[in-house]
Amino acid sequence: MSDEQLDRYRASIDNIDAALVHLLAERFKITQAVGEHKARVGLPAADPEREAAQVARLRALAVESGLDPAFTEKFLRFIVAEVIHHHQRHNETDAD
Amino acid sequence: MSDEQLDRYRASIDNIDAALVHLLAERFKITQAVGEHKARVGLPAADPEREAAQVARLRALAVESGLDPAFTEKFLRFIVAEVIHHHQRHNETDAD
Repeated sequence: MSDEQLDRYRASIDNIDAALVHLLAERFKITQAVGEHKARVGLPAADPEREAAQVARLRALAVESGLDPAFTEKFLRFIVAEVIHHHQRHNETDAD
Repeated sequence: MSDEQLDRYRASIDNIDAALVHLLAERFKITQAVGEHKARVGLPAADPEREAAQVARLRALAVESGLDPAFTEKFLRFIVAEVIHHHQRHNETDAD
């Protein structure tokens, strides 16, 4: 069954998802550089103060843009967990 | 302790996160419209075939952009779960 309105909505969702994937790829490139930089200068990997500031900032941005702040916080924690997982894998498989 | 390189990385992460939040806000606006449209025309809320196509497409985009395809799939399922949760809340609190 063809539904033109639904197809239009889905084309927009697909465009947004492609943008999200590319932004996430860029974000992981930067967090990987952060991990390497911190290891080089001897900073601890985790920074609870920075994470709290990120959560507060994103919750405020969420309110502004009509997104659920609780979801936005869950989203950030989901991404941060992947960054940590990624660093762990990186440290296990790379020689330096 | 000031670390200019770390500050620069973090400013980029903050910019990307703001973009992610705004894209997610736009995505939820569209999925809400999709939910309303489906209810109006009598289509089922879930569409496993569409979801499988989205997963396959995003996994391919992930490979292209250097992102872990498994993470990208987890990410899509995380977002879709929130959409379902959102629809459930919407149906509980709204009269129509």
